[in-house]
Amino acid sequence: MRRLLVTALLMLAGSAAIAQTNMARNKEPIALRDIGSFHLGGRYVDISGKPAREVSIGGATQTLNPNGTYLVEQMYVQYLLPQNRKGKVPLLMWHGGGFTGVTYESTPDGREGWLNIFVRKGWDSYVSDAVERGRAGWAMPEVFAGEPVFLTIDAPWVTWRFGAPGSYDKDPAKRRPYPGSQFPFEAYDNLIRQIVPRWTSTNDAIQAAYDQLVDRVCPCVLLVHSQSGAFGYAAALKRPDKVKALVIVEGTIRGDATTAATLKNNVDKSPMFSAQLANNRKMAELAKAAGGSIEIVSLPDLGIKGNSHFAMMEKNNAEVAEVVHKWLAGKGLVD
Amino acid sequence: MRRLLVTALLMLAGSAAIAQTNMARNKEPIALRDIGSFHLGGRYVDISGKPAREVSIGGATQTLNPNGTYLVEQMYVQYLLPQNRKGKVPLLMWHGGGFTGVTYESTPDGREGWLNIFVRKGWDSYVSDAVERGRAGWAMPEVFAGEPVFLTIDAPWVTWRFGAPGSYDKDPAKRRPYPGSQFPFEAYDNLIRQIVPRWTSTNDAIQAAYDQLVDRVCPCVLLVHSQSGAFGYAAALKRPDKVKALVIVEGTIRGDATTAATLKNNVDKSPMFSAQLANNRKMAELAKAAGGSIEIVSLPDLGIKGNSHFAMMEKNNAEVAEVVHKWLAGKGLVD
Repeated sequence: MRRLLVTALLMLAGSAAIAQTNMARNKEPIALRDIGSFHLGGRYVDISGKPAREVSIGGATQTLNPNGTYLVEQMYVQYLLPQNRKGKVPLLMWHGGGFTGVTYESTPDGREGWLNIFVRKGWDSYVSDAVERGRAGWAMPEVFAGEPVFLTIDAPWVTWRFGAPGSYDKDPAKRRPYPGSQFPFEAYDNLIRQIVPRWTSTNDAIQAAYDQLVDRVCPCVLLVHSQSGAFGYAAALKRPDKVKALVIVEGTIRGDATTAATLKNNVDKSPMFSAQLANNRKMAELAKAAGGSIEIVSLPDLGIKGNSHFAMMEKNNAEVAEVVHKWLAGKGLVD
Repeated sequence: MRRLLVTALLMLAGSAAIAQTNMARNKEPIALRDIGSFHLGGRYVDISGKPAREVSIGGATQTLNPNGTYLVEQMYVQYLLPQNRKGKVPLLMWHGGGFTGVTYESTPDGREGWLNIFVRKGWDSYVSDAVERGRAGWAMPEVFAGEPVFLTIDAPWVTWRFGAPGSYDKDPAKRRPYPGSQFPFEAYDNLIRQIVPRWTSTNDAIQAAYDQLVDRVCPCVLLVHSQSGAFGYAAALKRPDKVKALVIVEGTIRGDATTAATLKNNVDKSPMFSAQLANNRKMAELAKAAGGSIEIVSLPDLGIKGNSHFAMMEKNNAEVAEVVHKWLAGKGLVD
């Protein structure tokens, strides 16, 4: 592993937790040097041989010819640049599968998310929607192989470690989350509203656009979540000079996974995440042997308990953000 | 037309124009009381009778059961609240068909868009992604009737009045836009990158979510573009006490369209927009007869020339925004 890459992994636990009151929004104003957005990346594809069809647009029936050249697989980025910059390089926040940059905006229960929190800490912050998610747009079946995945409202409950199998109920009053969980369950449906369809065949296109983003914006810190763990890791390996640190929150770094089944740990309520953590620990050993640096941070070891897959949204999200900020400061990335 | 509703329509012309240099971004900082986002609206649907399928997610093959309850037809909203508030009520900016709230963010060539411009003028600003667009997400064929519309890269050229039929070429150097056009054609592909797929069967769902937004955020001013002209008009008719003004930019207010074919005017290069303007003028007459107020503002009559369908993105977007702001100030809506 090359030297300039330092990596932190936050693997979080759904166990006993500190009770915390729901915080109101921060009343301090936010002063920005600028706020803006852009699309980038993508490629041109030609579609031919499809029949024309009639569509009603703008109150009038039009003939739509679907044949021609399309621009597909672009991505979307919004940036907030604080007046009082403290981070030495920009912080890029990448979302997980089935989500968009909204992951880092206001929490499902309306508190400030990590975008506001890191901007207030002085980080130039870039929040993006990956290829085929959210404002990036998406393309026709000729471009994306297979069917998109839609999630039922109960699907996240066990997968993302809110509760044990069988503990979800259609009636919110009857749901039984893990005791001490930090997730704001009264706003569970707002998490569901954030979910967008996703394909499972688009990794190469997603990576290509992220790589272009790194070339455009970095040197930087990448903070990645879940599915984008793999994208962040790959981007860092390609541009070790540009990615000064990689913070992987509940993701995998996708190395040798053969040891995955052998390790049990504090996320073992989810076989998928248990395997990912095992693999990440193996990768950390390999990195150390090669003279690099991967650190795995388990929040319960720091006394921070009750987090699920979504620490950036949970009741203690400011406390977890501070763990990340201090770790980056310790790497010399904060003025 | 009820009394509290005042309406401005901007119909723009693609004719001779004032040359203007490409402005750099404003260097003055933006101070915000808050910035945040939320999803709202939607409904629950049950899907049944579909077969399970295998998908690879998170590096592992999973069995996906597509049957169950989904939450569909929600919408997404981001708000920026300036420290130095001047607008008496919030300003809600709604995008057109095939677009998202990005319409109002940075322009395709990277200048400040109307979101920044109106925030700097002191408006609490809410930019949204309508149902099935962008960060609102979208739903399965069981929910949305028909096929989504994808646009080829040349489709907007004539439809949105950048140039005459036959003036588009794959080679950017060979494109012949209308003389004096304000659109930043060097960034034409970035406009194309902003386009997202859209259905043409979802008007009721889009309206329902907008109506919920009005109930949540207003009293307010609605600033709507293109397809959302009809949504804004319908929302204002439903909540005349809450919608203090309606600014329709290049949209239709969808009343009696029988007179549409009889009127020729400065947007007659596009039959669709010509019909819309004719209809809007008819509506203005009806409103006046009923004691209400609809004003149609033609930018060329103010000496502002060369705008296409996208004044919020064009080189003179700040100048056009000032027309809107002054009109709202004239209605007593600015402190």
